[in-house]
Parts: sequence; structure tokens; C-alpha cells
Amino acid sequence: MSGELDFINWIRAQQHPSSRVILPAGDDLAILRWHSDDLLVVGVDQVLDGVHFDSAQHSPRSIGQKVMNRNLSDCAAMAALPVAALATVALHSSSNLNYAKELYLGLKDAADPFDCAIIGGDTASWPNPLAFTVTILARSAGIQPITRRGAKAGDGIYVTGPLGGSILGRHMTFSPRIHQARELASGFPLTAMIDLSDGLSRDLAHICQQSNVGAIVDAGAIPIHPDAIEQSCHDNRSPLHHALHDGEDYELLFTCADPCDKAIRIGRITAEQGIQLQTPAGLEPLPPLGWEHSL
Amino acid sequence: MSGELDFINWIRAQQHPSSRVILPAGDDLAILRWHSDDLLVVGVDQVLDGVHFDSAQHSPRSIGQKVMNRNLSDCAAMAALPVAALATVALHSSSNLNYAKELYLGLKDAADPFDCAIIGGDTASWPNPLAFTVTILARSAGIQPITRRGAKAGDGIYVTGPLGGSILGRHMTFSPRIHQARELASGFPLTAMIDLSDGLSRDLAHICQQSNVGAIVDAGAIPIHPDAIEQSCHDNRSPLHHALHDGEDYELLFTCADPCDKAIRIGRITAEQGIQLQTPAGLEPLPPLGWEHSL
Repeated sequence: MSGELDFINWIRAQQHPSSRVILPAGDDLAILRWHSDDLLVVGVDQVLDGVHFDSAQHSPRSIGQKVMNRNLSDCAAMAALPVAALATVALHSSSNLNYAKELYLGLKDAADPFDCAIIGGDTASWPNPLAFTVTILARSAGIQPITRRGAKAGDGIYVTGPLGGSILGRHMTFSPRIHQARELASGFPLTAMIDLSDGLSRDLAHICQQSNVGAIVDAGAIPIHPDAIEQSCHDNRSPLHHALHDGEDYELLFTCADPCDKAIRIGRITAEQGIQLQTPAGLEPLPPLGWEHSL
Repeated sequence: MSGELDFINWIRAQQHPSSRVILPAGDDLAILRWHSDDLLVVGVDQVLDGVHFDSAQHSPRSIGQKVMNRNLSDCAAMAALPVAALATVALHSSSNLNYAKELYLGLKDAADPFDCAIIGGDTASWPNPLAFTVTILARSAGIQPITRRGAKAGDGIYVTGPLGGSILGRHMTFSPRIHQARELASGFPLTAMIDLSDGLSRDLAHICQQSNVGAIVDAGAIPIHPDAIEQSCHDNRSPLHHALHDGEDYELLFTCADPCDKAIRIGRITAEQGIQLQTPAGLEPLPPLGWEHSL
């Protein structure tokens, strides 16, 4: 293929007009119009070949979908509405134009349902595996963003769906819970929220640390995904272990000051720090065994 | 080192308070306040080990400086003021916490003089070379952003400094021309601008293509950097060739409807498309030989 410019020209032809985007991809920077009453909610997330996906197994389209959906899931975690995204891709030198287009179409598959414009990017190639980063810009749109730091003793702890075993495939194919997050945040007094990327035990620890509280999780209330059961047949770990500690569920984990009938209650926040698991045999510590990137 | 969390906690301790940043790094996303009268100017740029720097030769601090300065240079190219940045880093698995901190301090060295807050990021490690991406958010701050598409026949073509031979070291140590861009854009009727990253011949072609114009460049007027002369001793190419085609000068290239005494005039825009070089022997075509990322 003849180079980056062909790819950029092709990308330009894919763009929808948007009232917020004054100048889309193709210049030094893109230009957006922003309303003062909308907080600007922004973040960045990358996926790496061999770490977050396997290019020998996963199609470029599904890789593009995953990196965009991870960023959209971060919007859900704040109850924010996505507006625009930018992408950088470091392609393996053997990748052709069609591979690059498929990556981009994957981004678009995930972004289009949320009217999220892809407004810029940077493409390079190197003799190493694929690295793919997306930046997401979102707006508060009338709902104060839900952070990790507002959980209070007595709040209920909730998740939006069954957990565990995402490695069997769901980690590539999940849907970001944006609409659900907006519905929850507008109907209930949510106090803290996070999306489950590192695993329930570790993500709950993030909320507890940032809110200076503890938690008791009811083992019997954790919704177990069928994948967690299937995965437990492959190793010596229980389905509950998988539901508690596997990462990449991309369900929402939140705390709420009032009872909430739109999600699954799995425990409560305590004033005393530390996270414990309530089992038929009594309380036991729940260590954060989920994913931590080791450097 | 014990992991990503230690690095994130260390990063949090480095952050300055900012009136625009409501919630800095450490949650799912960062939150900014944005004023409606300020256009949001945004982009992303990556550097890759072995392509844009050599980790065996360049310190992590200088690598951090370079990736941030490339993004700040994009702000200069639009005459926008930087506000905030986010970074993703894919570290080689052998890198330790100190290496990661030095990369971050490099970002900060470059961002601090412009009051640009580092508000978020994503860190991962993998058994491959370093990939490092920065997203930049800037504001128009009273000056309409200068794009690549406004050049008109008769405009003068200008550069802000001497060109060529940046590979001898300047590609790692340049200063982004933000203050100069603001001064130029507020004092003169600039019609198009770009920062010289791909080389004069190619970057001028970007302006001409997007503005649907041509150009005549005066060979005798091109400011030659001493590095271009030194570099010409190492190969068979003239200093002028290096000044015209080397990349990564990070000076500004702009077009202006009126004479401008704050930069070096190197030619003029023509209605007829195509870029030509005026030499003592006459006009000859000036092909875009500069850097194009081949995919």
C-alpha cells in the first residue's frame, strides 16, 4: 500500500457531519464546539497484542471494537455520554491497508450506536506487535459524573449482570453499559461507580480505597455467569472464584444510598475499612486477586 | 516494583491543582470544565521505539519530553493554547518503576512551561519495545485556530527558523513554537499553518492540497540549519536538500496575506497547483520527498 495519506483520505470519507465537530480528522488537530453546561469527561485506554487480545486469533474488526468499547465502558462508569474519539495505532509492518481499514471499521462499529464521532488519530508502523490506543471525550449531559469516591457506610453494592469467565470470549464482545448507567444515575442516588475491568474484588477495592470505606459482599448474591461455570471445569477454581476475581466483565459496579431494583444487590458498604466475603461459614477476607498490571 | 497502582499513586502526587480540572487522573475518566467561547482543539500523537527514538540511546526523560513536545507543536500549528494532556504507555516488561517515572517527568518537563496539566493515562507492560502516546486538549483562547486549508494565491510562505539535519539531535530537543504562533496569529492575517514534522516539501504539499493551491519556493531564501550542513558532509546530499526534505524540524510553516516581518519568507502561493523550486537555473518541480509513514 502506498502510505499513511491513502489511509487518512479513506478515513475522511468515512466521517459523518456532526454539529459539535467543526474540523474533523486531517489537520494538525481536530476542533470541537463545547457547551459550558456540559462537563468534559475524558480518558484514554490502550490494547496490546498478546496482552489484551491475540492478533493470531482475533480479527482486526473485533480488536477495533474492543478498544473502543473499553473506552465507552469508561464513559458508562461515569454515567457520561460519549461525544468523540481519537485513535493511535502502531501497526506491525506486515499489516496492509485492508487490515488498517478493518481496525478502523471496528472502532466505528462500536462508536456509531452512541453517535460518537472519530475525529482524529495517528498511524505508524513498526516491526513489532499491534498497539492500539483510543482517547474518549464525553459530556455530562445533565447528570453529574459518578466517581469512585462517594460511597458511604450503609450504601448497597450492586452489579448490572453476571460475572466471570469472560476470557472464553466475552472480553472481546461485551456491550458498554452507557444507557443503563444513565438510567441508573438519573433514577437512583448512586454514590460511586466503576466498570468491572480488573475483576470485582479489585474494582470494589478501588471504590473502597477512594471512598475511605469498607465492604461486606454476600457470596450467595453474586450473579455467576455460565462462562464462569464452564471455566471452572478447566481449572481447580470455583465458579464463585471466577465471578469474584476474573477481569473484563465490563458490567457496572456501583453503590447506592437507596434500594435499587434495576440491578443486582451483592452487599453493603461499611464504615470499617477492609473487604469481607459473607459465606455460610461466616465472614472471611476478600483479597483483591483480580488483574493488576505488573510493571 | 509492585505494580501499576504504585505508579498511579505517585503520579497523583505530582499533579498541580487547576481551576479547569475538576477531577484529575485516578478515576475511570478525568473531568474538566470548559468555556463555550473556547473552541476545543484536540489531537493525538505517538512515538515508537526504533521509529521516533532509540531507547538504547535516548533517556526516558528525553523520550517523554519528545512525545509531549510533538503534541504541543501541533497546538502551535493551530495557534491554540494547551490545557491538558493524557498519556498511554506500553512499557517493555524489563522497565522498572524508575524508568516509568522518568518518562512521566519528561512529559511534565515539556508540559509545565505551558501550564498544561497531565490529567490521565493508561500504563501497561508487554515483552516488546516502548510505545508512547499523548493526547492533547487545547483551547482557541481568543484566536481562531489556523488550519491547513486557507492558503490563497499571492500569500507569502514563511518559516520560523532554520531547517534540516534534525536527526543529529534536535528531533529530541526542540521547543514547540506556541508563543510565536500566538504572536503571529494575533498580529498578522495568517491563512494556513502546519508544524514541520514531515519535512518542508511534504508539509507544504499538505497545505497546498488542502487549500487547492500551488506554490513557488525560492531556493535561495530557505534558511539552512548548521546541522543540515554537517549532515551533508555524511552523505551525498546538499544542505539545501536536507533543509527541504528532512523531517522533525518542528518550526512553523505558514502562509500570510500580508508581509510578515516576524518570520522568514521563502516563497509564495500560486493559483496553479503543483509546487516548484525557484533556482538560479529556473523553475523545477519540488517533489514531496519528506517522511511518509509507509504501512
